[in-house]
Order: sequence, then structure tokens, then C-alpha cells
Amino acid sequence: MQAQLWKNISLVREKSPLVQSITNYVVMNNTANALLAVGASPIMAHAHPEMKNMVAIVGALVINIGTLDEYWVKSIHLAVEQANALGKPWVLDPVGAGATSYRNEVLEDLLQLRPTVIRGNASEIIALAGKHNASTKGVDSTHHSMEAVDAAKVLNHHFGSVVCVSGATDIIINREKITKLSNGHSLMARVTGMGCTATALTGAFVAAQPGDPYEATVSAMALLGVAGELAAEKSAGPGSLQVNLLDALYSLEENEFTHRVKIS
Amino acid sequence: MQAQLWKNISLVREKSPLVQSITNYVVMNNTANALLAVGASPIMAHAHPEMKNMVAIVGALVINIGTLDEYWVKSIHLAVEQANALGKPWVLDPVGAGATSYRNEVLEDLLQLRPTVIRGNASEIIALAGKHNASTKGVDSTHHSMEAVDAAKVLNHHFGSVVCVSGATDIIINREKITKLSNGHSLMARVTGMGCTATALTGAFVAAQPGDPYEATVSAMALLGVAGELAAEKSAGPGSLQVNLLDALYSLEENEFTHRVKIS
Amino acid sequence: MQAQLWKNISLVREKSPLVQSITNYVVMNNTANALLAVGASPIMAHAHPEMKNMVAIVGALVINIGTLDEYWVKSIHLAVEQANALGKPWVLDPVGAGATSYRNEVLEDLLQLRPTVIRGNASEIIALAGKHNASTKGVDSTHHSMEAVDAAKVLNHHFGSVVCVSGATDIIINREKITKLSNGHSLMARVTGMGCTATALTGAFVAAQPGDPYEATVSAMALLGVAGELAAEKSAGPGSLQVNLLDALYSLEENEFTHRVKIS
Repeated sequence: MQAQLWKNISLVREKSPLVQSITNYVVMNNTANALLAVGASPIMAHAHPEMKNMVAIVGALVINIGTLDEYWVKSIHLAVEQANALGKPWVLDPVGAGATSYRNEVLEDLLQLRPTVIRGNASEIIALAGKHNASTKGVDSTHHSMEAVDAAKVLNHHFGSVVCVSGATDIIINREKITKLSNGHSLMARVTGMGCTATALTGAFVAAQPGDPYEATVSAMALLGVAGELAAEKSAGPGSLQVNLLDALYSLEENEFTHRVKIS
Repeated sequence: MQAQLWKNISLVREKSPLVQSITNYVVMNNTANALLAVGASPIMAHAHPEMKNMVAIVGALVINIGTLDEYWVKSIHLAVEQANALGKPWVLDPVGAGATSYRNEVLEDLLQLRPTVIRGNASEIIALAGKHNASTKGVDSTHHSMEAVDAAKVLNHHFGSVVCVSGATDIIINREKITKLSNGHSLMARVTGMGCTATALTGAFVAAQPGDPYEATVSAMALLGVAGELAAEKSAGPGSLQVNLLDALYSLEENEFTHRVKIS
Repeated sequence: MQAQLWKNISLVREKSPLVQSITNYVVMNNTANALLAVGASPIMAHAHPEMKNMVAIVGALVINIGTLDEYWVKSIHLAVEQANALGKPWVLDPVGAGATSYRNEVLEDLLQLRPTVIRGNASEIIALAGKHNASTKGVDSTHHSMEAVDAAKVLNHHFGSVVCVSGATDIIINREKITKLSNGHSLMARVTGMGCTATALTGAFVAAQPGDPYEATVSAMALLGVAGELAAEKSAGPGSLQVNLLDALYSLEENEFTHRVKIS
């Protein structure tokens, strides 16, 4: 399995897939840099008049509602509808699910468009599944990944999406399959948009490997976990972690990766 | 006093207050990272339909008009009115006060809503007070902090806000009280949004300590000054300063802080 | 010539020109930091009601359409019309030219306003000239700079703009003059917005030296190439490159610059 994950990482480096992100202002710079570091080519665009054209030329679409407003929600719909029409994969990051009614309504509409992959923290995944079972809504990531397994299964069942719950343990779920990854480092939670970076990288991997979004998601999360762990070990704090993470995503080699990755 | 300041710094690390920023695009990433580094939890949101919900769950609100436009000004009003209705503290950063008539009009309206704290450079504070006494309006930070003391007093008198004038010397004013802090380093002026970071951290501190916004502001500014000074000493330029600042905000210890802080 | 370039670099450090950027969200932070590192003073603003006021106080205007939408296109027009009315230089970065019809239409309108300088990669310059000769439109930077020389000449001929094609070799063209710069490093392409940084720095240099936009552009590109090369040599990847680049832009000295710069 480790060998297959590395093959997928190499595929992104070789193919350099074009990934469009409609994402939040806070993380645009660092997610673009993360995409470049793993070998992908980022595009950020949201103007209504160009959504159809733009989605037509990219390999995957990443939707992150972090700093949403009415204009951006319309951009998201135009882009997702085009992605679905052209059979291109898209990844949803439900930032702040459960925090406000507006977010919940926007996310409910997006779920109906059946994301290829959903990536969130435990509280977000539980909140997202809230309308589809009886679990309570979370506001921030106070839950552990394992608490969100049932919610992830509900989302997968209703919308057919691969669901990734990220945290100290990352969990990726699709139908009967479940993968757990235990890399990473607690310091990663002190850098803004680490989850958004996970989602962006997942976009690059599904673009390179559209036929198997489950394995693509596992590969992206494994890469980020191992690179983050390596970076944290040589970092004095969250500032140097950011820098070292980009360096590690760029320079990670097969030996180091397969030696480090903890998958079950 | 040093011991009390450190206690307040520890309080933020323990409480991890949720801080909502409606701020400018340029600094969203680094102010979010600064908030995480000191132990706070940042949220950036501006959509009109969610402003009431969002402000209801946070500990404080930070308003920074750097890249304002009509939609964002409306967002700011919705958020501030909710903060005032719920008795939550809010901090105003009057970026570019005096540069354009539009900024001045927007700021005049915001002053009427009585910010808990105002944090600006000397030129901004002088411009902000311009309609309330006879001082000239500045465009950029060509003034020294001490030149803005009278303007700060005018603002405090009219609007009841704690006023912080940041610069080589940081001055914090409330009624009869005045505190001066002399930490920091000239290289900090070569990193974009250092003032915005000061404002964001002030938001975290008033959220942790809503009963004493004056002491909260002094504590936030002292932390940033000491961390910035430490970071600059080991930096080859403004690039490494940014990185080292986040590391220092995260890892600063009591001994180092109390040994370094220059307060009068 | 090297001595003259260094003189221009020193001029920016001394004059500290005010540069307004209407640019894309992805690069706002790092281009502001690059401007500060070379000694300039950045302003980012786009609100329609303040465009006339703002452009009136700055030395140059930088227009970058990366994350354009209808509101921002209107901001750009208001700002450029004011710059032209006041005889202030402005620099156009045609990000993603050729990628969508919307971008092409927006750029066609902007060309009619006769930018002082245009800075793009080879594919963008070829696409931009596409309506003015028969060359094909590019989507990403798959072309080499030399392939865009004819397109650059067409743009210069029609609109009077100094044209800079950046790449492994940077080419700057004006009427009969052509300059080639061969500094830089391949790792620079792995950092988002490196081209946008080139455009922003060009804005600072034309602000300091409005009488000679050709030489100003050559100087800006030479500085970025040499600083990037120096930074890359000590970087473990794209994360540390960003940091080292800002440090190098700030601390570069004459000896190092004149020794390194490759100009023909």
C-alpha cells in the first residue's frame, strides 16, 4: 500500500494537474504554495462570467466556504454545475459548518450537488451530517476524528462522497472501506488553514487520479501528514513550521515517506 | 506590573478565546497565524446573513478597514451593532485614516458606535481625531507616537475608547492613565500588517479579559513588542522576521518576557 | 549599465515611493512585503468611492487581474482613468490572459488605456497580443520568453507600453531597444505570485523614476532576478525561498548585485 501511495504522489509531480480553488481569503496564498510544492498548478478565480470557461480547462475544483458571501456562493454553484456537467471531480471543505444558519443552508445546497470528496474536521463533519441523522452540531474542532465516523458514513451513504475526517488521526471513508492515518504533529493545529491545505492537496490528487478519489484522498492526506511531521520536528514554532512544510512537500523522497507513513 | 502582564498573556493561552476579524485581505493570513500563535482561535467572516450568528459565538470582534468597500462596511456595521447589543468588546483599526474622504466618513460613523479599543499609528490617530479638534490629517505614519497623545486623549474623551498609538514607543491611554512601552525593533516596520497584528492580538486579549480593556491592550502590545524584538535580533531581514515573530509569540516564556519588557 | 541599475535601486530605497496595487487576493501579502523590502510603501485599496482620492496621493499604480470580478474591474477603470488624467505611470499584469473570454475582454479594454508597462509570462504576452496579430493564445506559461518577442513588439507598437516578458530569461522591450536578463532560479517558479512580485516591484521603480519606465523596468527585474538567485542558493525548497527572497531584497548590496547581474 505504501508503494501505491508513493506512486500517486509521483503522479501528481509528473502530471502537474491544474486545480481551480474557490476558497477563503485567509488561506489563498498558502494553499496555492502547497499546490505548487507538490507539483500541481493552482488557479484561483471566482468571477461569474468566467466560471464555465475556467472549470473547462482544469483537472479538479476545490470549494472552500471559509469566507463565503452571496457573490461567492453563486460562483461556487456556477463552477460546481460546470464540473458536474463535464464529469470533473470536486472537493468540498465545509469550513465552520454548524457555526451559523447561513453556512448550514449553503452547505445543504452543496451536498445536493454530490461532492466527489468532502474533507473537514470532526466537528464540521458531525455538523454537516446533522440534518441527515440526529447528531448535535459542532462549532469548532472540539471533537476527535473517531467521534465523526458515523457522521462520515451518513454523508457517504446519502451523497456518495468519499469523506475525510482530519485530526490527530485522519480517517477516510468510502462505502465499506475505511483508512486511518496517524502521522502529523500537534503544532500543525497552530498554523491557519492546515485543513484547507489538506483539501487543496486532495484536489490535486483527484485531478491526477480521477478514477479513484478514495485512494487519491488517502494519498494526499498521507503526504501532508508525513511532510507536516518532518517539518514540525525541525521547527521552533508555527512560523518555521509553515516554511518547513512547504520545503518538505517539495523535497520529500520515497524512502522517507514509506518509512514514516502510518496507515491502517 | 510585569507579573500582571504575564498573567494576562497566560490567560489568553489558557482560555483560547474565539476572535472574529473583519479585516483587510492583505493581512488575513498573518493575523490569523498571530492569533493562533498566542493561543487564540481566529474566525474571519463577513457575509451579511451570518453576522448576527457569528458575533454571538465569539469573545471579541476586530474591525480593520484596510481594504474596505461598500459591502464590507455594511458587514462591519451589522457585526458591531450585534457586538454592542450583546455587550461584547470590539477593537477598531483605522487603517489609512486621512488618506481619502471615504475612509474618513466610514470612520466617523464607526466612532459613533464607541469602539472598546482603537489602535492606530500616530498619523492615523491624529487624522481620526481631526474632526474633533483642530489637528491636521496625516496620510502615512510620518508622525511619532508622542505627537498623537493629544489626539488620543480627544478620542478617549469623546468616545470612551481605550486608545493605543503604536510606534517606536507604544502609548496606551484611558482617562487619566497613560502607559508607554518601548520594546520592538525598526525592522518590524518592514513587514506588512504589523500594526494589524497588534490590533488582532488586542482583540484576543480583550476577549480573555473583557472587564479591563486598558490592561488587556497594554498586555497585547507588550507581548508583541517583546516577541518582535526577540525575533528581529535573530533575523536577516523582513522575511525571516515574520517567521521568527510567530515562533516567538508561540514560545515566549515568563522569564524572557519580564526581563525584556520596558514599561513606564 | 550595472552602476546605473544600482543607482535606480538606491533611488527606490531613498524615495520610498507610495505604490497602489489593485491586485489579486492570492499575492496581496507577499507583494506588499516585497514592496516594503525594497524600500517602497504599499497601499492596497479598491473601493469605488475612494479611487480618485487614493490614486492622487500615490506615485504609481499596479493593476493585476488575477482574481478579477465585475466590482474590481470597475475599480481598475476608475483608478487607471485617474492615473492617466494625472499623468501617473501604471503597470499591467495580465494574469491568465487567454484562459477565459472574460479575461480577454477585460484586458482588451485595459490595453486601450495604454499601460505604461506590461509585465507577463510568455504565454500571457502571446495571448494578449493575439487580437493584434495572428499568434495563438496560451493558457499557462508553456512558452519560453524568446517565443514572445514578436508579441511583445506588437503590444509595444500598438499601445506604446514598455513590455516585459519574464521567464528563465527576462526580456524588456521598448521601440528599438531590447534588454535580456538571465538571473533567477528555477525554484522561483514554485512560489506563487513570483510574477506578480515582479510587477509590483516594477510599480515601485516607475514611481521612483517616472521619466524612464524602460530603465525602471529593467532595474526592477534585475533586482528580483539577482535577489531570487541568491535566495534560492540557500533554500531547501519553496518555503524557505520566499523567506530568503524578502531578506535578500532588503539586504542586497551593490557589490553582490553588480557582480551577479547578467544583462545583455
